[in-house]
Amino acid sequence: MTKIRPLDDRVVVEATEEEEKTAGGIFLPETAKERPQRGKVVAVGPGRLTDDGERATMTVSKGDQVLFGKFSGTEVEVDGKELLIMREGDLLAVITD
Amino acid sequence: MTKIRPLDDRVVVEATEEEEKTAGGIFLPETAKERPQRGKVVAVGPGRLTDDGERATMTVSKGDQVLFGKFSGTEVEVDGKELLIMREGDLLAVITD
Amino acid sequence: MTKIRPLDDRVVVEATEEEEKTAGGIFLPETAKERPQRGKVVAVGPGRLTDDGERATMTVSKGDQVLFGKFSGTEVEVDGKELLIMREGDLLAVITD
Amino acid sequence: MTKIRPLDDRVVVEATEEEEKTAGGIFLPETAKERPQRGKVVAVGPGRLTDDGERATMTVSKGDQVLFGKFSGTEVEVDGKELLIMREGDLLAVITD
Amino acid sequence: MTKIRPLDDRVVVEATEEEEKTAGGIFLPETAKERPQRGKVVAVGPGRLTDDGERATMTVSKGDQVLFGKFSGTEVEVDGKELLIMREGDLLAVITD
Amino acid sequence: MTKIRPLDDRVVVEATEEEEKTAGGIFLPETAKERPQRGKVVAVGPGRLTDDGERATMTVSKGDQVLFGKFSGTEVEVDGKELLIMREGDLLAVITD
Amino acid sequence: MTKIRPLDDRVVVEATEEEEKTAGGIFLPETAKERPQRGKVVAVGPGRLTDDGERATMTVSKGDQVLFGKFSGTEVEVDGKELLIMREGDLLAVITD
Repeated sequence: MTKIRPLDDRVVVEATEEEEKTAGGIFLPETAKERPQRGKVVAVGPGRLTDDGERATMTVSKGDQVLFGKFSGTEVEVDGKELLIMREGDLLAVITD
Repeated sequence: MTKIRPLDDRVVVEATEEEEKTAGGIFLPETAKERPQRGKVVAVGPGRLTDDGERATMTVSKGDQVLFGKFSGTEVEVDGKELLIMREGDLLAVITD
Repeated sequence: MTKIRPLDDRVVVEATEEEEKTAGGIFLPETAKERPQRGKVVAVGPGRLTDDGERATMTVSKGDQVLFGKFSGTEVEVDGKELLIMREGDLLAVITD
Repeated sequence: MTKIRPLDDRVVVEATEEEEKTAGGIFLPETAKERPQRGKVVAVGPGRLTDDGERATMTVSKGDQVLFGKFSGTEVEVDGKELLIMREGDLLAVITD
Repeated sequence: MTKIRPLDDRVVVEATEEEEKTAGGIFLPETAKERPQRGKVVAVGPGRLTDDGERATMTVSKGDQVLFGKFSGTEVEVDGKELLIMREGDLLAVITD
Repeated sequence: MTKIRPLDDRVVVEATEEEEKTAGGIFLPETAKERPQRGKVVAVGPGRLTDDGERATMTVSKGDQVLFGKFSGTEVEVDGKELLIMREGDLLAVITD
Repeated sequence: MTKIRPLDDRVVVEATEEEEKTAGGIFLPETAKERPQRGKVVAVGPGRLTDDGERATMTVSKGDQVLFGKFSGTEVEVDGKELLIMREGDLLAVITD
């Protein structure tokens, strides 16, 4: 199986397929293009390099349900799965149901 | 119930429906489009990451009545409620009646 | 009465109505649009967050007569009073008569 | 008498009326629009806020003859005198005759 | 044999020839031009100079399989091999099969 | 005699009149407009203010022959001499014959 | 003989005349205009001034064979030799044969 390890403060996210109404009560209509998209974090990078050479702690963890802008990230297909690589700063919020 | 936990220095705000005259004496006419909008803070992020890896304290708290620019934030609907996710720096002031 | 508490390094200013000649000898003719506007500070924020998480001291105080650029700030009406919310850095000088 | 106290690293400068040839041997012809303008510092701000919350020392003093770009500063008239408020960084040099 | 030693936080990458389906299960169709490209790190620079004059540790190592944006880097041909010189920050992720 | 004291990290430079071939073997043809200009440093500022309020040491000294971009600096005429005020960072190199 | 001492983090580079195939196996065809150019470092500046007033160590040395972008640097002719002055950050890599 292929593993993908994001660099810097990047995360790998598997976007949730958009439906009219998602399970967790987050409604994301197709028409409103400024609405964020939901997804699951599948891999987390080592964190941003601070000015003194340390790595800042990442806020999200593997498995977290997150919201992010519709146009965030770079698409890559790993073992047939569509994934997105983006910076943690592109994530807006963590959702818990 | 769905919970939304904003990341970084972001806050989740529930915008007050604009009326001709709000309860607290803040008058926000529809015509003046440079006027800020009022809302209530419903969730507060962990704070901005400082250069030495700490989190800076957030200034606003859950429940605060706040003013923010009309075009600030990203809309998301959680459990049927229209919410806005924005950075704390987009908030202009806290209002107390 | 409604109270407005500015955030970050913002101040709330009540602009002085422009007259041909103000009391303090500051002459601000209508024609010269690059001239600054005068006003009174009515509320002062906690100060800008420094890199180490402290708040930098604000230079102006409530009651100060200040000069600021004509296009600075965001307008808000509180209890019938027209106020401006702007960053302290938008203030040019303090005037004393 | 009105006093003007500049904020941050700003200075208040009284521009010297441009003549064909000034007293100190600085020749500033009207035609060369890229030439700097001469003036006298009449008030000096507390200095720029450094990252650790201190104020950096100002280099110029009240009374200094200075050169600055022709388009620098904001005009204000105090007690009938035309003054300019600008940042110290807009000053190019101090002139001594 | 010619050796190439990248400077600063740069890496030298040998891009993998794009096929319909790569060995590691990373599918990179020609049509989707926003897809990242895969390659192998062949040389690693000394790291970015931090503000205090130290070199920050590089995250990737020689031999790592990496993903990077299709338009990243500068091409150079060394001993007949097509190589790319880019900054480590242009690398998105490390892939292990 | 008029003295000019540059501020911050500025230097005052007296540009060498461009000839077909200068004394020091630096050839600066009129046609190549991307070529730098040569001059002599006549005054040096106190240095750039560092973040902790100190002044960084200036690299060039009074009397140094320097190269600088043709469009660098602000012209001023002091006691009949054409001078240029520019930041030290606009100087490219020191020339010694 | 004229000597040129670059300032700050600048280097002086003597560009290698482009041939169809250079000695070290670096092939730089005329057509590919995004290809870097090769050259030899002939002088190295004192290094970039860090925030605390020190000079950061330069990575390249006099005599190094380097690659740099085709449009990097400012041309100057010293004693009949065509030279380029550029910042060290414009150098991509050091080449050893």
